[in-house]
Amino acid sequence: MTEKQATFLSELQSISSLRQISSLLGWDQQVNLPPGNSPSKQRASQRAVLATLIHREFTSVEFQDKLRELEQMEIDSNEDWGVILREVRRKLDRAIKIPSEFVARKAAHQSRAYHAWRKARQNDDFASYAPILEVTLQLAREEAAFAGYADNPYDYHLDLHDPGMETLSVAKLFDALQVELVPLSQRILGLAGTCKLPALKNFPVTQQEVFLREVVESLGFDFSRGRMDVAIHPFCSGNGNDTRLTTRYDADNPLDSLFSSIHEAGHGLYEQGLPAKWIGTPLGEAAGMAVHESQSRIWENQVGRSRQFWNLWEPRFRELFPEALSDISSEDLFKTINLVTPNPIRVDADEVTYNLHVILRFELEQALFSGELEVSELPDAWSEKAERLLNLQPKNDAEGVLQDVHWSSGSFGYFPSYCIGNLLAAQLWETAKEDIPELESLIEAGENERFLAWLDEKIHRHGSRMNLLELTEHATGKPLGHAPLLRYLEERYLVLYEQN
Amino acid sequence: MTEKQATFLSELQSISSLRQISSLLGWDQQVNLPPGNSPSKQRASQRAVLATLIHREFTSVEFQDKLRELEQMEIDSNEDWGVILREVRRKLDRAIKIPSEFVARKAAHQSRAYHAWRKARQNDDFASYAPILEVTLQLAREEAAFAGYADNPYDYHLDLHDPGMETLSVAKLFDALQVELVPLSQRILGLAGTCKLPALKNFPVTQQEVFLREVVESLGFDFSRGRMDVAIHPFCSGNGNDTRLTTRYDADNPLDSLFSSIHEAGHGLYEQGLPAKWIGTPLGEAAGMAVHESQSRIWENQVGRSRQFWNLWEPRFRELFPEALSDISSEDLFKTINLVTPNPIRVDADEVTYNLHVILRFELEQALFSGELEVSELPDAWSEKAERLLNLQPKNDAEGVLQDVHWSSGSFGYFPSYCIGNLLAAQLWETAKEDIPELESLIEAGENERFLAWLDEKIHRHGSRMNLLELTEHATGKPLGHAPLLRYLEERYLVLYEQN
Repeated sequence: MTEKQATFLSELQSISSLRQISSLLGWDQQVNLPPGNSPSKQRASQRAVLATLIHREFTSVEFQDKLRELEQMEIDSNEDWGVILREVRRKLDRAIKIPSEFVARKAAHQSRAYHAWRKARQNDDFASYAPILEVTLQLAREEAAFAGYADNPYDYHLDLHDPGMETLSVAKLFDALQVELVPLSQRILGLAGTCKLPALKNFPVTQQEVFLREVVESLGFDFSRGRMDVAIHPFCSGNGNDTRLTTRYDADNPLDSLFSSIHEAGHGLYEQGLPAKWIGTPLGEAAGMAVHESQSRIWENQVGRSRQFWNLWEPRFRELFPEALSDISSEDLFKTINLVTPNPIRVDADEVTYNLHVILRFELEQALFSGELEVSELPDAWSEKAERLLNLQPKNDAEGVLQDVHWSSGSFGYFPSYCIGNLLAAQLWETAKEDIPELESLIEAGENERFLAWLDEKIHRHGSRMNLLELTEHATGKPLGHAPLLRYLEERYLVLYEQN
Repeated sequence: MTEKQATFLSELQSISSLRQISSLLGWDQQVNLPPGNSPSKQRASQRAVLATLIHREFTSVEFQDKLRELEQMEIDSNEDWGVILREVRRKLDRAIKIPSEFVARKAAHQSRAYHAWRKARQNDDFASYAPILEVTLQLAREEAAFAGYADNPYDYHLDLHDPGMETLSVAKLFDALQVELVPLSQRILGLAGTCKLPALKNFPVTQQEVFLREVVESLGFDFSRGRMDVAIHPFCSGNGNDTRLTTRYDADNPLDSLFSSIHEAGHGLYEQGLPAKWIGTPLGEAAGMAVHESQSRIWENQVGRSRQFWNLWEPRFRELFPEALSDISSEDLFKTINLVTPNPIRVDADEVTYNLHVILRFELEQALFSGELEVSELPDAWSEKAERLLNLQPKNDAEGVLQDVHWSSGSFGYFPSYCIGNLLAAQLWETAKEDIPELESLIEAGENERFLAWLDEKIHRHGSRMNLLELTEHATGKPLGHAPLLRYLEERYLVLYEQN
């Protein structure tokens, strides 16, 4: 490394340290912050000061000059340093293009919008929120225009979450998926509807915690550089040097904690597998939201809801909860784990219908950005799409268009990541089973190292060297497609419920 | 407030936010950081980046110019803004005088010194550590010289912890104290030595936590803007907007957790009582280490070890630990709480002999700085003073000169705060009993609001407006003296043990 590279790296890592600190403040806010008003006001000030500093350091003339100097050197764009410079440039250009006046205006609106959304959802009153959402949308268009996407603003928002993704390519995938998934999901729902499954009740929380930790550790999560705590909304934050998962406990809903923990552990395993040497640079970061989601989903669903996984863990589960499970058969337990049921709420949906919830939102976002749809028409459009995709109607807006927080915080183009993550997870799973023919027996034996190493080789270790589409090709030898997810859902759910 | 004042205040508060963040990173390090190497390396980098930024912002030309502009306005030095400008100036002058080259050199040495000290203590090998301590001492002299204390370096270190304190005034207090405390402590030790007290064993930790929280809450600690967690070393960090106490649990030592929690809660109550409006400025900060310590000690000792406090809490204590306490009489329990016993280790010492441990260190520090004593002569000097002050001999250096971490981190002039805090606590207690004649009955009734309000009026609400000596005069109408502490110890301990 030349001296110039070393200086640049050190500055980049300093800025990254500030970002890590901001993320820790966010974690602490969710996990530890005392409930009073003054702790939360103080925390908001701290984070605002840090955000200003990060922006100032990142966009400083000195830093830009150093980047430019390095860009003038001959560096292969596929080599480590090439990737770092490319990614820093991409992010810096964006940071510079968006004026700080706009950032402040957007932040002020977001805080208002969040509170308006909460109130509207509580009162089931979309009309009160519509004018606010109108402004949010306008700001999102404005931001895209600053970044050079005046003609295709939705592309900007997709690219923010998953570099390289565009409206057209996502639409092609989702259209192909829904053609088959709508009838498939109705068929599975029809079969599953005839099952009578028992409710899971009275699972002591301290025992749940014991179980979760054993499971999460067995997946390969390294607790010597990570933790698991309690927060209202489960999430994973930090990086591979200090990875923090959160979960929540409900004595009458042990599967929620369990699968959200496995999900977050999947995110954590990705973070812990990113190249440690390059932490503090883009090369040490994830390749985007959808790739991140593929890692959480593959552990949660393909592994965690599999027959093999439960052959392994059911005895221990029964050992920890002998009373709660005494009247529940193995088959009923497994079906409850893989329950498919109509649900208007995305976050409560099963893995079959979940993807249709996402497609619904993608189609609405696209229509909003293209101007085909007005904000005021959202509730009707929601109903129409829910009918077509999910064969259900939300009782009210709180159960429909007001259910998600994302739009209130100005996050457009985020929902698609969830479904793209599922597509990638299924495609990776198919390839992994080809590459490791004994994969399912290994899972049944609790030997997850081989699979984790495979994910590491295919995904983790590459950081952001490749984008989602490139990484998919690299890992699976094929372009990202919709078929593997359909095959996976058919295999798992038709087999399970056709036994009825 | 003028516009200039508002701008200055906002910058000052931004710098303070960064300091708060650094403190939170420290708290998280003690409470949450995963045990591996990479979390701790990453945390060190984060804190280093933040320290550099804080220094840069605080000493920036822009900030200095703004301060100077305000200093040119006519502001009464006793008014809020006068205090803020005075204190910012005092700290800024110090920060500017000490070159960053020196700060880096000192930080590098401290890290080495800490490891050398740990190793030396483990191996009971002072000789290996002596040359390192020599350098630490030299750096401490150098720092004092930068700050303008070339001729009286120890004054600099005292003033760092307790503004306004000087070697001579501390020596006068400590000399007067030891003349009477040495014989008094021997007399109490003699009486106490004839007691046979039971060991406290098997106090379930979850029950201890219940008890501690009830006690700490009853003192007035506000959990809506504070928390209590577990750490190896108990401490209090944060400020009144978010006050974080830590404690530790040992089933066979419930009094350690209890009294260290009350102690830390005392610090927390001070922080929560500082003027909220001025948090982020020196006026919202404590008046120094010794004043802080007076607040922790007065709750721990004067209140927490009193007969009245135990009349109130003993029933609940027995309710929570019926088995562990079944064979222990009330009187034996109370004596165990007020145990006085010879101990070579300061942190394990009772409140009678504790002060002599501090005086020992103060005398040694003074001699080191004046040049009367060489580092190599420390072990012998330690033995000689331990004999004279405590009537005991450390078995080895690990139990003597190597027992404390302070010198290894370059903290000289810190120990005296502990004893000065005890002096002030006793003097405040005497005055409080005069001002509130029913004080002890209130404590027996668990009604601590009046006493907390009294402390608030006398100490808390003044922030750093007055220094230790001024605050003592303000609160008690008398200069800081040694007599109240002696009277308090005599009253409590002679009465208790002469009953034998």
